[in-house]
Amino acid sequence: MNVCCYTLNNIPLIKRGDDIARIIIERTELKEKDIVVISSSIVAKAEQGLVRLDSHNPTTRAIEIAERNDADPRFVQAVLDNSKETLVESPFLLVELESGHICVNAGIDVSNTGDYNSVTLLPADADYSAEQTRGRLKELTGISTGVVIIDTNGRAFRNGQTGVAIGVSGIQAIHDWRGSPDLFGRTLEVKYEAILDEVAGFANLLMGEGNGATPIAVVQGLDLLSKKTSITELFRKPEEDIIRKALKRQKEIASINE
Amino acid sequence: MNVCCYTLNNIPLIKRGDDIARIIIERTELKEKDIVVISSSIVAKAEQGLVRLDSHNPTTRAIEIAERNDADPRFVQAVLDNSKETLVESPFLLVELESGHICVNAGIDVSNTGDYNSVTLLPADADYSAEQTRGRLKELTGISTGVVIIDTNGRAFRNGQTGVAIGVSGIQAIHDWRGSPDLFGRTLEVKYEAILDEVAGFANLLMGEGNGATPIAVVQGLDLLSKKTSITELFRKPEEDIIRKALKRQKEIASINE
Repeated sequence: MNVCCYTLNNIPLIKRGDDIARIIIERTELKEKDIVVISSSIVAKAEQGLVRLDSHNPTTRAIEIAERNDADPRFVQAVLDNSKETLVESPFLLVELESGHICVNAGIDVSNTGDYNSVTLLPADADYSAEQTRGRLKELTGISTGVVIIDTNGRAFRNGQTGVAIGVSGIQAIHDWRGSPDLFGRTLEVKYEAILDEVAGFANLLMGEGNGATPIAVVQGLDLLSKKTSITELFRKPEEDIIRKALKRQKEIASINE
Repeated sequence: MNVCCYTLNNIPLIKRGDDIARIIIERTELKEKDIVVISSSIVAKAEQGLVRLDSHNPTTRAIEIAERNDADPRFVQAVLDNSKETLVESPFLLVELESGHICVNAGIDVSNTGDYNSVTLLPADADYSAEQTRGRLKELTGISTGVVIIDTNGRAFRNGQTGVAIGVSGIQAIHDWRGSPDLFGRTLEVKYEAILDEVAGFANLLMGEGNGATPIAVVQGLDLLSKKTSITELFRKPEEDIIRKALKRQKEIASINE
């Protein structure tokens, strides 16, 4: 198997209302089954624009968490406003979003906004955003692609952040290996592979994080198109999530001890 | 940036003593700065061969855990024998290896061994294994490469497994973004990127899990060679690991309640 991944050059500073699909096709010639990977921050900028931190009035709870974490209370309030549940509150905020995605600070980012009073949120419905972009690419080029929207997140047990998928349209999220034989015809150990996150991580590596301005990548050579897909396939059910239950217990103990 | 990743074809069934570097160079022409990604199972097979499950005599503890987990007690004993610490014991075994790597079942695999009485362990010192292979590739070709040894692991909060690095030689594990400006010259949000795991995941995607027999991939076009590197850079210090502490507390509570 031979796969290539490249980034698009000269992406302009994205502002609200920008047509990301058009920006893509002006910079590359897509091929059938290409996977277009887009950084969540530019999707959010195109959809919502920047959000002012001072539009979030800190509650008592936000002020208290901010004090513990040495953070801006308005930022903490923004995180709480965009979270369904907090898994860890200190020394950092690990939360679950409405979508089911779990990440630090609800994915809210102060970088690449131009000032410390503006932030980008994650797209409200990243699957929908991916679908819109995929539809627009099809409309503009006639070509069927997959679209993945990614963010950079930390992990349990390991240092460093990696790219992960937060929205998808048109390609599989999980490959189901059940029923596939190993080299000797026996049952495979690995049942489910999160191929979408494996794509997301590599695209993130090429995109970089700073002022390289390469928030869009294309992966060419994979055959992963799928009509039926959702980012929710990647999220563990809370009742099946041992680690999440342990964090919940930890939080309960911490509040009893206060 | 434009990067390609390809798998090597027709890798034979690896047995103890096989020269993986020679197998690689007989199938591809490497270029300077190529990253060679190798599945841990073939490294282990070449170094140790297969390990018999019946060489692990189950202790009372292994029998008790096996009963709770509906598992083979000899397999559980093999996991315990190869672990430094257990983080979760039931419904599955999540352990820390001597190397510091944390994974389910100590990475012990029954797949691709030919029978259910044989298993592959992870390489005892995967950094050393990577270094040996890198040195051998240099000896055979004169070319400087990076070598990454990977396994497939589950993650917290998310379904599905992805490829992760468990050993490295010659390329960076973490990219340090501190001091790099964002688009507006301000401090970046992301400080450390686990680029090695982003490579590992993508290579794993191309390799597949089953009888495709593609346990070696080459990533071409990145510029990540580094003399000083170790897989330990990727492992969080236990005292800084919130999730690990929560699991430890959970385990303590479970044993108090017994």
